Amino acid sequence: MDYNLILKQIQSEFADTPISGRVASYIPELAKVPPDKFGMHLLDCKGRHYCFGDSNERFSIQSISKVFSLALAMKAIGDELWNRVDVEPSGVPFNSLSQLENEAGIPRNPFINAGALVVADVLVSNFSNPKGALLTFIHEITGDDSIDFDPVVAASEAQEGYRNRALVNYMKSFGNIENKAADVLDLYFHQCAIEMSCKDLAQAFILFSNQGKLLETEREILTSVQVKRINALMQTCGFYDEAGEFTFKVGLPGKSGVGGGIVALHPQHYAVAVWSPPLNPNGNSALGMDVLERLTQLTGLSIF
Amino acid sequence: MDYNLILKQIQSEFADTPISGRVASYIPELAKVPPDKFGMHLLDCKGRHYCFGDSNERFSIQSISKVFSLALAMKAIGDELWNRVDVEPSGVPFNSLSQLENEAGIPRNPFINAGALVVADVLVSNFSNPKGALLTFIHEITGDDSIDFDPVVAASEAQEGYRNRALVNYMKSFGNIENKAADVLDLYFHQCAIEMSCKDLAQAFILFSNQGKLLETEREILTSVQVKRINALMQTCGFYDEAGEFTFKVGLPGKSGVGGGIVALHPQHYAVAVWSPPLNPNGNSALGMDVLERLTQLTGLSIF
Amino acid sequence: MDYNLILKQIQSEFADTPISGRVASYIPELAKVPPDKFGMHLLDCKGRHYCFGDSNERFSIQSISKVFSLALAMKAIGDELWNRVDVEPSGVPFNSLSQLENEAGIPRNPFINAGALVVADVLVSNFSNPKGALLTFIHEITGDDSIDFDPVVAASEAQEGYRNRALVNYMKSFGNIENKAADVLDLYFHQCAIEMSCKDLAQAFILFSNQGKLLETEREILTSVQVKRINALMQTCGFYDEAGEFTFKVGLPGKSGVGGGIVALHPQHYAVAVWSPPLNPNGNSALGMDVLERLTQLTGLSIF
Amino acid sequence: MDYNLILKQIQSEFADTPISGRVASYIPELAKVPPDKFGMHLLDCKGRHYCFGDSNERFSIQSISKVFSLALAMKAIGDELWNRVDVEPSGVPFNSLSQLENEAGIPRNPFINAGALVVADVLVSNFSNPKGALLTFIHEITGDDSIDFDPVVAASEAQEGYRNRALVNYMKSFGNIENKAADVLDLYFHQCAIEMSCKDLAQAFILFSNQGKLLETEREILTSVQVKRINALMQTCGFYDEAGEFTFKVGLPGKSGVGGGIVALHPQHYAVAVWSPPLNPNGNSALGMDVLERLTQLTGLSIF
Repeated sequence: MDYNLILKQIQSEFADTPISGRVASYIPELAKVPPDKFGMHLLDCKGRHYCFGDSNERFSIQSISKVFSLALAMKAIGDELWNRVDVEPSGVPFNSLSQLENEAGIPRNPFINAGALVVADVLVSNFSNPKGALLTFIHEITGDDSIDFDPVVAASEAQEGYRNRALVNYMKSFGNIENKAADVLDLYFHQCAIEMSCKDLAQAFILFSNQGKLLETEREILTSVQVKRINALMQTCGFYDEAGEFTFKVGLPGKSGVGGGIVALHPQHYAVAVWSPPLNPNGNSALGMDVLERLTQLTGLSIF
Repeated sequence: MDYNLILKQIQSEFADTPISGRVASYIPELAKVPPDKFGMHLLDCKGRHYCFGDSNERFSIQSISKVFSLALAMKAIGDELWNRVDVEPSGVPFNSLSQLENEAGIPRNPFINAGALVVADVLVSNFSNPKGALLTFIHEITGDDSIDFDPVVAASEAQEGYRNRALVNYMKSFGNIENKAADVLDLYFHQCAIEMSCKDLAQAFILFSNQGKLLETEREILTSVQVKRINALMQTCGFYDEAGEFTFKVGLPGKSGVGGGIVALHPQHYAVAVWSPPLNPNGNSALGMDVLERLTQLTGLSIF
Repeated sequence: MDYNLILKQIQSEFADTPISGRVASYIPELAKVPPDKFGMHLLDCKGRHYCFGDSNERFSIQSISKVFSLALAMKAIGDELWNRVDVEPSGVPFNSLSQLENEAGIPRNPFINAGALVVADVLVSNFSNPKGALLTFIHEITGDDSIDFDPVVAASEAQEGYRNRALVNYMKSFGNIENKAADVLDLYFHQCAIEMSCKDLAQAFILFSNQGKLLETEREILTSVQVKRINALMQTCGFYDEAGEFTFKVGLPGKSGVGGGIVALHPQHYAVAVWSPPLNPNGNSALGMDVLERLTQLTGLSIF
Repeated sequence: MDYNLILKQIQSEFADTPISGRVASYIPELAKVPPDKFGMHLLDCKGRHYCFGDSNERFSIQSISKVFSLALAMKAIGDELWNRVDVEPSGVPFNSLSQLENEAGIPRNPFINAGALVVADVLVSNFSNPKGALLTFIHEITGDDSIDFDPVVAASEAQEGYRNRALVNYMKSFGNIENKAADVLDLYFHQCAIEMSCKDLAQAFILFSNQGKLLETEREILTSVQVKRINALMQTCGFYDEAGEFTFKVGLPGKSGVGGGIVALHPQHYAVAVWSPPLNPNGNSALGMDVLERLTQLTGLSIF
């Protein structure tokens, strides 16, 4: 498979695409990102890198961070986690409260906000410095210690985060949050504010293409069963209320964030990240969705 | 109408009723109220008092306070209030969040918790000392300055109030709360902790039987239109998800609280309060509901 | 109370009101009713009649018929009825199916479509000729044998009634419909197609102002307890998702239909009917709602 | 991969599993199937067959038929289909009506009942003999003309199918059903009553492992893009409200039916069918789910 050629073709095909969608604006820091940023980075399982555009520029990974926190929580408490969060697609928007009401405070999956907050609560319970532990984990799997939170974004999230504050308190009323709401939210707002580039993301997610082992050293970070489950969750729940559409069109496990990043992976083949800030009405990068659909068309391969 | 005879009959009929229902237990202070407390006080529009049992003992009025805060908010901002809270029955439990989700943060009515929190927010915006203002209003309409908050109950409410904290933050995410969540909740938890007896409640609610005027001085506290509307709201929304049942069986406007109090009124005839702590599954005093149904049977009168 | 003067004033005040709202158009027969039809008829408990405009012209009473079928079902099976239909406001649109799903096929109240279909099923089970029995009941309480179904309207309803067909089948899946769907729907589509004038409606509903007795002969048709309950249900559930608003503004029990009719009553005072076909967004006569609010302002009286 | 050994191991491991779950009983024909029936058949992409137990006995395929009708509708009208049915997981039970209410009669996906009824409507519009067309399609892909409907099961389905009748009428009220309800239901009740064995199902579904081509002749029945999409839909929506769980544990696209059959496939590797009638609370074969999880453990392979 000549990924070099394929990425070149994608770059040229999408070069003049008029911008559709709107950059996230619920916090000022995201609103000021230029809408024409566009980058892509693919890392294959043989360690070869392919990229174009703004692939080395770091941006706010937002909900993509939920995959890292989930992996860390699975390492910390294993299958106990599934007593507190389910693994089903939600069928409702990512920040919905109503499903919690019918289901006694158990979030539908770890990638809707409610679920990610339960995962954050697990990390707060299991690490003395949960923010540090999460960064350390990301440093370990990317091999890059310079990845960090953007404190301004984290502070902005905290200032506007009424709905997440509502979610935490609501689940606490059901007994499904162990720690103080403020501590859980502090971790959550920080994890959303982690900054990574397309390259960083591809380097992190190759772990999930490589059955949980680091590519260079083959050291096992996650078991193959854990990786299978995380990939399955990305497949069914990684794109909010558009998970079915992404599976239908792209056919790869992946995860998006409102910063405009999308990361996807083909097990035993590659991990790929795209960045384009304008979002479609479902909150996923509009151009990113199209690019990844084109990628699976050009490679002729998906997991299906 | 010989109310004296009617109350005597009710007292004897219900004297040996076995206790059904369970005393509210979400905070320890409510859980320890003896379940066999039972009192009733009726005040007619000619100023005559009828009572029996524990009618002079004060208890936590809880949601009955929502009528007082509503009246005070209507005096403060008039019809503007209806831009922020609707007047329709909810059809869902009193502390539900899901309806807010479909209706952009506008609570269904001022007597579900979400609506009462918006009303509290209005009071925080319009009074420098909102807790004091609410007590002053109650002192004025009852003529009794000794009515006060129970600080222990208020503190307990605050400690357990995750769902109300969720509601305030959730509405704040829709822009329907102006003040800090903590300030709104502080008022709300205190108003629920006001202590009044059946006699106090009958004295307060006779205002709504008397077209808004104090019984003794005929001084107008609320306009007759305001009173009509408050009574209408009590009729359609005063009993959580059992408002229809109460209207159907009793046929009077009224309001209940999880402290076991129920107050009801027949316009231009009387106001009546009953207290019995054990609650039915809908959160209303089980015995209180039966007593008031019996009262309208014995008087042969309801508003219908 | 000079109702003559009050109706004259209402007639003149509303004479030049520009038409707002839209005439119901889901069946052609309703769509072709002239939007400027406007009539009002008030009958007081002393038997005096007051009216203006098109008050003698018959129109399709639609959902107002649900009050007649409810009364007949209560006479037929008494309190058993409440095992099959609840008495709570619904908080959702009149033709909603979703609430049934959560509540095991028990409709919220007899005035939403689902509830009226259960009531129709009761009539089919209890009368060999249920359509005839319903007409006979209306003839008896109005003293007018010329009231009849419009067969063209009934046929049109049947042709378009997919949602009602869905409701019946859905409740049948829960075991809450005893008869064949076709038989229940045949009665239901016919009852909606009954034609009555404002005068006819006032004559029928004076029964509910007069504690269940015919005005002229004082013969008891319904017990006073049955009347109290029917009035209570009209109060809390008579106006679809606008019942609270009507109670709040008008403060009388009443019932509306998409033919543009509204009937309301003040117990022991009067029954009143208004007709103006254009509907507000909630499906109630826009002008009718305003006229009745004005009526209670001018009389200075409501049940509250 | 020695599938022979793996199936032997599964057979012996599960030989003495006590029966959990309950055989579907909503129609008498399903209720009388012996609960201890158990068979498995795997067909790999090289055309080799592996099986044990009751793998040659035919049973009612029920919802598995939805995959065949979907494939046929995609062949008939292509992407137009997606204007009438969505591709998202539903998050609610398979026979729910409430989601339709919020989404204007557009079913969430083709595998919930509402979606399958829309697909049936498409077939009724596009084939003069839709039942025959569906059988012909199944004969073509299995090479076995003896596969047929069980007329007794179809008649039983029709007799009890109130909820499906409700769904069709409800969607018709939104304009999303073109044909008569009776015609759509006739096809639907028949397709659910198709009888196939594990072997038949494996032979049919190998098409979806083989990029849409028949295994022996390599004739293209579906395009590779169509197959990718059908597989993606099975992955996200194939197991009612347990699709996430199946993806999480098994990690293969698949489809279950209340007759106790489950079919799954690993693209370019194999198709596999299991049959065991007792169902778990989500309506999927309890033993079948466990067997397929064990299969992916023993092969060490899933699509993730």
